[in-house]
Amino acid sequence: MEYKLLGKILGKIMILEGILMAAPAVVSIIYRESPRNIIAFAAPILVLILLGSLLQIPKPKRRSLYQKEGFALVALTWIVMALFGALPFVINGDIPNYIDAFFEIISGFTTTGASVVSDVTLLSHSTLFWRSFSHWIGGMGILVFVLIFIPESNDGSSMHLLRAESPGPTVGKVTSKMKMTTRILYLIYLGLTVMEFTLLVIDEPIPGYESDHVFNSLLATFGCAGTGGFGFIPGSMELYSAYSQYVMAIFLIIFGVNFGLYYLILIGKIKEVLRSEELRSYFIIIAISVGIVFFSLASSVSDIAGSYTTGEESFRHSLFQVASLLTTTGYTTTDFALWPSPAVTVLVLLMFFGGMAGSTSGGIKISRIVIAVKGAYVNVRKLINPRYVPKAKIEGKTIEEKTIYDVFGFFTLYLLILLAVILILSFDPVNGTAVKIASDAGEYTVTHGFFSNFTAALSCISNIGPGFEAVGPYGNFAGYSPFSKIVLSLTMIIGRLEIFPVLILFNHRTWKKI
Amino acid sequence: MEYKLLGKILGKIMILEGILMAAPAVVSIIYRESPRNIIAFAAPILVLILLGSLLQIPKPKRRSLYQKEGFALVALTWIVMALFGALPFVINGDIPNYIDAFFEIISGFTTTGASVVSDVTLLSHSTLFWRSFSHWIGGMGILVFVLIFIPESNDGSSMHLLRAESPGPTVGKVTSKMKMTTRILYLIYLGLTVMEFTLLVIDEPIPGYESDHVFNSLLATFGCAGTGGFGFIPGSMELYSAYSQYVMAIFLIIFGVNFGLYYLILIGKIKEVLRSEELRSYFIIIAISVGIVFFSLASSVSDIAGSYTTGEESFRHSLFQVASLLTTTGYTTTDFALWPSPAVTVLVLLMFFGGMAGSTSGGIKISRIVIAVKGAYVNVRKLINPRYVPKAKIEGKTIEEKTIYDVFGFFTLYLLILLAVILILSFDPVNGTAVKIASDAGEYTVTHGFFSNFTAALSCISNIGPGFEAVGPYGNFAGYSPFSKIVLSLTMIIGRLEIFPVLILFNHRTWKKI
Repeated sequence: MEYKLLGKILGKIMILEGILMAAPAVVSIIYRESPRNIIAFAAPILVLILLGSLLQIPKPKRRSLYQKEGFALVALTWIVMALFGALPFVINGDIPNYIDAFFEIISGFTTTGASVVSDVTLLSHSTLFWRSFSHWIGGMGILVFVLIFIPESNDGSSMHLLRAESPGPTVGKVTSKMKMTTRILYLIYLGLTVMEFTLLVIDEPIPGYESDHVFNSLLATFGCAGTGGFGFIPGSMELYSAYSQYVMAIFLIIFGVNFGLYYLILIGKIKEVLRSEELRSYFIIIAISVGIVFFSLASSVSDIAGSYTTGEESFRHSLFQVASLLTTTGYTTTDFALWPSPAVTVLVLLMFFGGMAGSTSGGIKISRIVIAVKGAYVNVRKLINPRYVPKAKIEGKTIEEKTIYDVFGFFTLYLLILLAVILILSFDPVNGTAVKIASDAGEYTVTHGFFSNFTAALSCISNIGPGFEAVGPYGNFAGYSPFSKIVLSLTMIIGRLEIFPVLILFNHRTWKKI
Repeated sequence: MEYKLLGKILGKIMILEGILMAAPAVVSIIYRESPRNIIAFAAPILVLILLGSLLQIPKPKRRSLYQKEGFALVALTWIVMALFGALPFVINGDIPNYIDAFFEIISGFTTTGASVVSDVTLLSHSTLFWRSFSHWIGGMGILVFVLIFIPESNDGSSMHLLRAESPGPTVGKVTSKMKMTTRILYLIYLGLTVMEFTLLVIDEPIPGYESDHVFNSLLATFGCAGTGGFGFIPGSMELYSAYSQYVMAIFLIIFGVNFGLYYLILIGKIKEVLRSEELRSYFIIIAISVGIVFFSLASSVSDIAGSYTTGEESFRHSLFQVASLLTTTGYTTTDFALWPSPAVTVLVLLMFFGGMAGSTSGGIKISRIVIAVKGAYVNVRKLINPRYVPKAKIEGKTIEEKTIYDVFGFFTLYLLILLAVILILSFDPVNGTAVKIASDAGEYTVTHGFFSNFTAALSCISNIGPGFEAVGPYGNFAGYSPFSKIVLSLTMIIGRLEIFPVLILFNHRTWKKI
């Protein structure tokens, strides 16, 4: 490991984080918050820029990174950013416990949206901004950003880093000019963000939140764009108008699409976009899921389903929740934990899926699901007739066996990590305790048990946010012990970086001098 | 597909089933049951032998089976056996609904032990015998039995069939003389069964069940040997003495071992047995699981854990439940659904595992778990250093990449089928209803929900029997709709035959004339 080079790149990340943190500091000044709130951001900014600059002094012997160094660097970047990003919450007292603050900001950067905060109305504007802004930063990945926009960076390294940091196995290459492409992708991200913000801000303000209308519209946009999901007003998105809920649902679906496809649209290759099997599968999954959930709500006599007065309302809730959980965002418009069984089951299954590769969403990714299903089908065909050699195809091209096996391997690792985390959570003293939930359907009590832990672990590895029962849409993660919170924080990073970089970080071989 | 050959072999299976059904008929006579009870077995016996003999008349063109025909035949055998095996329950009125009866006998033959019967004291002796005897028959597989013991059968076919019907990927070959080996394996099965029966029958009878002591000891032995789990007295095994519970726990562990290892012991190759990594992993998993469960019970203040008066009792319940769920049997000595969270979680995770390949147990099998973990580790190592070619080894021999990928593929299919079944079950009207459970810890009510469906599906695909909540150790499967019961029946066969034969059965290509 070339430590000086590592330090140099990490230093740059720290300086950038310091610059990004200026945004919530400005928010703090605009809203005339107390000096303590301003210092909460100013002090970490100074430390980040100072430390980051000091790390630029040593001269590294090499200027490029090996693949495994790249992977380790990516994991390390996310941890370092979270270590410093947690400081403002502790200093301004909004989340006084450092481990809670660490969990919260990891949840932000990984675009999970799982929160330890039980009442967001107690948080300062600057805290709310930093939480939601971290989704937007984390959505596209920070490290690639640094390497693309800082001129002296090395191309060979960037390739490894992009591979480690960007979500999902991208099936096709967009262009060989990677720096250029990445810049275009960031511009698309920015453009879509501006579009959603505009559409939200032109809506009537929510009654009681008139003064914060622009602010809240921005935060909602950050959460959707990064497919994050931190709430900033009580009840997540339930107070928003039907219009705004539709806007958000549609933009969630838009942000769950591979950004490479938007690039193709920009350069006029619409045909190629329409040929994308992942895109088609993505929309088929959305349509079937919304269909099942809507049918299940419409035919149900349960209290919550009965409280939706029109078919449009049931449909809107169905669409919103499906879009939110499939893209691993976690925003909600109603207490879906109380929905009838088929709806709950569809939502739990969607928690495994995630959006498309190359989007800002988490989860296993649609492309992996498609490859796994096709691969499994081919395996069965081979058994029926061993002499016949069937080929799984995607977009007319044969999927290499190695790709199928890598996906199978990913599934296996995903499952093993998920089961391990569920087991660790089961030791938490919170298990068996009664948790009060106050949702749009009234107050009720749930017992923290296996289903809570199962969906908490799944929600964190898939970077969703809410789960069911104690960690349901109207619950939170505050009840877990500090140890569980650290485990879940790590799980979120593992999920965001798709397992391998984090495993490499913890392998002793990575840290040998070479 | 060579239909005449298929018919001929199926006919032989039917004749054999007729012969095996004579055993419960004899039980019916011994216990002086009503003529209706005797006819319930006598009539199906006649039909089976008549139809089976008729199927011997046509002369098949070929005398050997292709692999896919073999696979389809295996799946078909299990379905045909269940279709006729369900008849006695309907005729004698113990399970009047045919779909319920079909579910029950499939559950028997697949050694699942999931039951629709809520009160076993209402069943006749002959019904109880046929249920438990079906575990013993199903444990080792019936089709191989037929082909091995009927002289005219074809060796080439048997190989395919053994591969399809015997559980798990057997890592080493025991001997090349397959018929001989298989006979020895059946003899080992018989020998171990006699040993367990002897150890159980010498115990004091359970108070109130003195007259049925020999009968019950036999049924308990059938259930353990086949790792089935149908209860025949109220409360599964909770009324048995500590001694008998230990005997059963130990024999469950014994029947979860690859029978090939016993063969090696018989011919004096003890060293080879000790080298078995699957055996070592099996015992490590048992030790760790018992440790966690025992620790969790000992440190818990919950009602049920508090009701165990001694450390020995807690240990015994821990050992028994771990042995029972790991080997996918499903016998219980206490209401483990009420155990503290770490214990419940360990038991749910064990439901995925299963015993060793080549044993009578269901589940994914320890060997697949070992291969998957090693394969995943190798995948990570390769990512750290792409030039280095690491090799996963088992018992000193390199595991072929193909084997690893097959296991990954199996995991993926297993997961996909499990999720599909959970989704189907979620539509059952039973969801959301309250279910009363009367266990050794008193009466309580659970709501049938996701966790019930999840563990019901997992329990059926892993051939365990009980799950949690509504289908917990003191619950049953009676509440599911007929449609769900058919789906779960199919899931049990899929699990028992390890997925592929059933998929092949439902593929239209299998049924082309060739």
